[in-house]
Amino acid sequence: MPLYKAPLRDMRFVLDEVFNANEFWQSNPAMSHVDLDTVSAILEEMAKFSENVLLPINRSGDEEGCTFNNGVVTTPKGFKEAFKQYAEGGWIGLGADEEFGGQAMPKMVTVLTDEMLFATNPSFTLYPLLTIGAGMAMKEHAGEELNNRYLPKMYSGEWAGTMCLTEPHSGTDLGIIRTKAEPQADGSYLISGTKIFITGGEHDLCENHVHLVLAKLPDAPAGSRGISLFLVPKFLVNEDGSLGARNPVAAGSIEHKMGIKGSATCVMNFDAAKGYLVGKVNEGLAAMFVMMNYERLSMGIQGLGASEAAYQNAAAYARDRLQGRSATGVKMPEKNADSILVHPDVRRMLLKIRANNEAGRAFAIYAAQQLDLNKYSEDPAVRKAAADRVALLTPVVKAYLTDKGLENCIEGQQVLGGHGFIREWGLEQWVRDTRISQIYEGTNGVQAHDLMGRKVAKNDGVFVASYLAEIRAFNATLAGDASLDFMRVALAQAADEIEAATKWVVEQARINPDEINAAAVDYMHAFGLLSFAYMWAKLAKAAAGKNEAFYSDKLKLAKFFVTRQLPELTSRLASIKAGADSVMQFDMDYFA
Amino acid sequence: MPLYKAPLRDMRFVLDEVFNANEFWQSNPAMSHVDLDTVSAILEEMAKFSENVLLPINRSGDEEGCTFNNGVVTTPKGFKEAFKQYAEGGWIGLGADEEFGGQAMPKMVTVLTDEMLFATNPSFTLYPLLTIGAGMAMKEHAGEELNNRYLPKMYSGEWAGTMCLTEPHSGTDLGIIRTKAEPQADGSYLISGTKIFITGGEHDLCENHVHLVLAKLPDAPAGSRGISLFLVPKFLVNEDGSLGARNPVAAGSIEHKMGIKGSATCVMNFDAAKGYLVGKVNEGLAAMFVMMNYERLSMGIQGLGASEAAYQNAAAYARDRLQGRSATGVKMPEKNADSILVHPDVRRMLLKIRANNEAGRAFAIYAAQQLDLNKYSEDPAVRKAAADRVALLTPVVKAYLTDKGLENCIEGQQVLGGHGFIREWGLEQWVRDTRISQIYEGTNGVQAHDLMGRKVAKNDGVFVASYLAEIRAFNATLAGDASLDFMRVALAQAADEIEAATKWVVEQARINPDEINAAAVDYMHAFGLLSFAYMWAKLAKAAAGKNEAFYSDKLKLAKFFVTRQLPELTSRLASIKAGADSVMQFDMDYFA
Repeated sequence: MPLYKAPLRDMRFVLDEVFNANEFWQSNPAMSHVDLDTVSAILEEMAKFSENVLLPINRSGDEEGCTFNNGVVTTPKGFKEAFKQYAEGGWIGLGADEEFGGQAMPKMVTVLTDEMLFATNPSFTLYPLLTIGAGMAMKEHAGEELNNRYLPKMYSGEWAGTMCLTEPHSGTDLGIIRTKAEPQADGSYLISGTKIFITGGEHDLCENHVHLVLAKLPDAPAGSRGISLFLVPKFLVNEDGSLGARNPVAAGSIEHKMGIKGSATCVMNFDAAKGYLVGKVNEGLAAMFVMMNYERLSMGIQGLGASEAAYQNAAAYARDRLQGRSATGVKMPEKNADSILVHPDVRRMLLKIRANNEAGRAFAIYAAQQLDLNKYSEDPAVRKAAADRVALLTPVVKAYLTDKGLENCIEGQQVLGGHGFIREWGLEQWVRDTRISQIYEGTNGVQAHDLMGRKVAKNDGVFVASYLAEIRAFNATLAGDASLDFMRVALAQAADEIEAATKWVVEQARINPDEINAAAVDYMHAFGLLSFAYMWAKLAKAAAGKNEAFYSDKLKLAKFFVTRQLPELTSRLASIKAGADSVMQFDMDYFA
Repeated sequence: MPLYKAPLRDMRFVLDEVFNANEFWQSNPAMSHVDLDTVSAILEEMAKFSENVLLPINRSGDEEGCTFNNGVVTTPKGFKEAFKQYAEGGWIGLGADEEFGGQAMPKMVTVLTDEMLFATNPSFTLYPLLTIGAGMAMKEHAGEELNNRYLPKMYSGEWAGTMCLTEPHSGTDLGIIRTKAEPQADGSYLISGTKIFITGGEHDLCENHVHLVLAKLPDAPAGSRGISLFLVPKFLVNEDGSLGARNPVAAGSIEHKMGIKGSATCVMNFDAAKGYLVGKVNEGLAAMFVMMNYERLSMGIQGLGASEAAYQNAAAYARDRLQGRSATGVKMPEKNADSILVHPDVRRMLLKIRANNEAGRAFAIYAAQQLDLNKYSEDPAVRKAAADRVALLTPVVKAYLTDKGLENCIEGQQVLGGHGFIREWGLEQWVRDTRISQIYEGTNGVQAHDLMGRKVAKNDGVFVASYLAEIRAFNATLAGDASLDFMRVALAQAADEIEAATKWVVEQARINPDEINAAAVDYMHAFGLLSFAYMWAKLAKAAAGKNEAFYSDKLKLAKFFVTRQLPELTSRLASIKAGADSVMQFDMDYFA
């Protein structure tokens, strides 16, 4: 039976000792309702809920899956009860505004509760996650009337949100969607079309569904400038908030997938269903991106949560499993073999996962802090700088944390040997469940392209330059502490290498626009490594000079990261230099 | 529906133009019954069988799985008929000696037929594979009487072989097995114990099962020097070859696994079952290693076959899928979007898989040629040199080809975006089925340890030195052809880097034996990259100066490999330099 204990001490270390969160919150009037004690209590509550309620139904949910019958989706046993408890605990609105029933907790807190949720039951977690994301897009774009009518019911868990973008012929390229919106005399629209891969498009956890749907007006311009966003409820909502007639929108089927089998992935058919415009006509993509950016960050947390679960289960197995003897002499003479923890390669696998997890958690909190600054700061310049930083980092959090997430789950599975392949041990489910995080909400290739193109090359590297300046300024504060020299030198070199590579790609792209996409994935990985090195510098600095093993181990793990993982950065940047020609010189027919 | 066409032209290119196979066979009396025309016909037949018979039952076999009922294992629909056809075609004994009903085809041929089998139905392929491996160990160690009685029935497909090593508490560490063998007055033994993870331990394809079982005699020395090998049939065999009484050996259950669900993985209970000694008392491990080394090479081919299937399906999807427009201008003005093949990153993914596959296939044939030299050469010095080379390369073929196999299946799945996660597209099954190849027959960590320890450090790098000398001698033949300069320079540098790293690890290990295992996995990957570079040099040389696109594309792909994949070698070797201290400085309790 897979195990999980929320890493509360590590979480508090990052919040309190690395990011000095209490002072950050207390010094900002819009966040002064938040303090470390309250947050600690919240984290402890979520630890209990995820460990005791969600983990026990994770594997059974995978074995049972969702079932589809005549348009009705039934979630696995226990999901309904868990969802009720989750909703009653007020968790759906944890980060939402108080006026709609939320608890107004900053993102720095919800990334940690999300990590616990994803570490114990990703299929379950996707249901409220879509509601929260839909709520965010609505709050910014749907207007008072729709929001007052819908948001409180969504945060209470009575109604659930969805994100309806993809169509059978149109995934990444939303400019070619075919779903139509016919304007009606009463100001509403009739939506017709088919959407696929709709997470939680239909299920039995809530009494109503609130679909956010991309569609085109009859006279809309071609491409992505002609897309509008609509709110389409499953049941129409009466003036008094009660449920009215059934709207003609229904699930046609659910997908049979590799993983996240407890999450219903639906084909949704809209057959002249009544919808309400969200935001402005033809500006639907921008409104949807509020939700999409939230989901992208969340997918990164999915990778992180899975990876933490993989670490804990692999470490537990390694401690107990006795095979072979240490190369430096018997360590457990009373047993007929030593624990496999005596073998350096078993430790290498575990430490690699752990080094990624600790940096990944800090990186998620760092990105969350930028989101909080953007939302709550009183200084417009700070808000703008934070928005730019979030724009730069969102694709990295999404793609790098999910790429590492799968890699770590596979590594964790490997620690178990043959048992890793057997279902009851749970590791293989983590691999299958985590695989989707690299694909949905924009594949990691699309994320890398967004980073290299829109976030780096399009503004001539200005966002990167400001990030590098911050990294170097921080790195300068490490000088003088000899115990941090290894970190300072490595981080300085990584920053220099990224700077040079950025310059090279931006220049090449002026000659050949294909250079952007040719460099994208290797650049994203190099950028992720730099960011993890930056986080390890922060973690190491916070731990330096403190005596307890908890702190000195942080420095050891920082060194492990620098000497064993960071060297990959150099080869990633070398691969970039191959340029677009290395792939474009083949004829189309070559791939026949 | 997943597709597959055997890459016959590429296979013949490697055999004929790269390895000059016809001359190799014809010039050696023991192989002179083999010629390229016969081999081509064999490959074409296997292409038909794998494409038309095995592929259609691959996904249904995964969906249905094996079922277990009261000790009886039922394979998925169609497996029985396919196996009958496979056996009647004489495929089981394709590489076996003629005196036992085999066709005496060299390994250079069977690695190619195995690739097709694994590319279309790995679950099915495992059944005969175990029979073939058991036959090889028996032929060398079981003696005339047992072999005459058993081998012809195994090669005809009437009886099936298994390999019974692992026990619940004892996987990698076979020295601590508990299965006992009690000597009987008639020279036989009574075998008692439980074995787990037994592929094909019980199934309905054959009328009898022939288990090769590791067990300990009552007075056996402790550890791996006290292990003997026994042949234990499910049904005893009468003097006339007919089946006699049921032996008390039975499957207790089958495992529920991540993949290869059509292959029955059994718990086998031996309850004083009659067994016959194979080889000498207490030398069972050496006899079993004949089988194990064969299976290890075969697992590498599993990775390769899966990877070829992943390439073909991903390329087909990419050709048809229209999303977005080329960054350098619209390429398909008649469509509302371009094929995703216009995006450099999609090509990067496909080319990476293909560059690995073409080098991997050449590497498998290279290793197979060494096996053939070892078996068939008249010159004892040649046989010895080939045996040493096989010893060095077996762990690399197993681990590197399976690591690349999974990586390539995941990359292929990524090309399909959301569809890659959906079962009906097949890619997700390839990921699940291929994952086991990194685990069974000794995890890839164990393979890397075998390479770094027994094959490299233990003999002070002599095997590596001779491999490097061969590589450098070959590389010298590239000089003078300017079109091959990029290849020659890159290969020379890779050889130098491996030489330096080998020297470094061997020296460090003299001070601290833990350095072997700490370096192992990174070294294995670096070694795999060097070997692939060597193969690309061979492929490039064979293609140079030939005009057809087939050949000029080989040079382009060689360059892709050199510029985009080979740089990883440098970072792998940098990681090695972190040394054992990077992982051993943590207390055991750190992993609590």
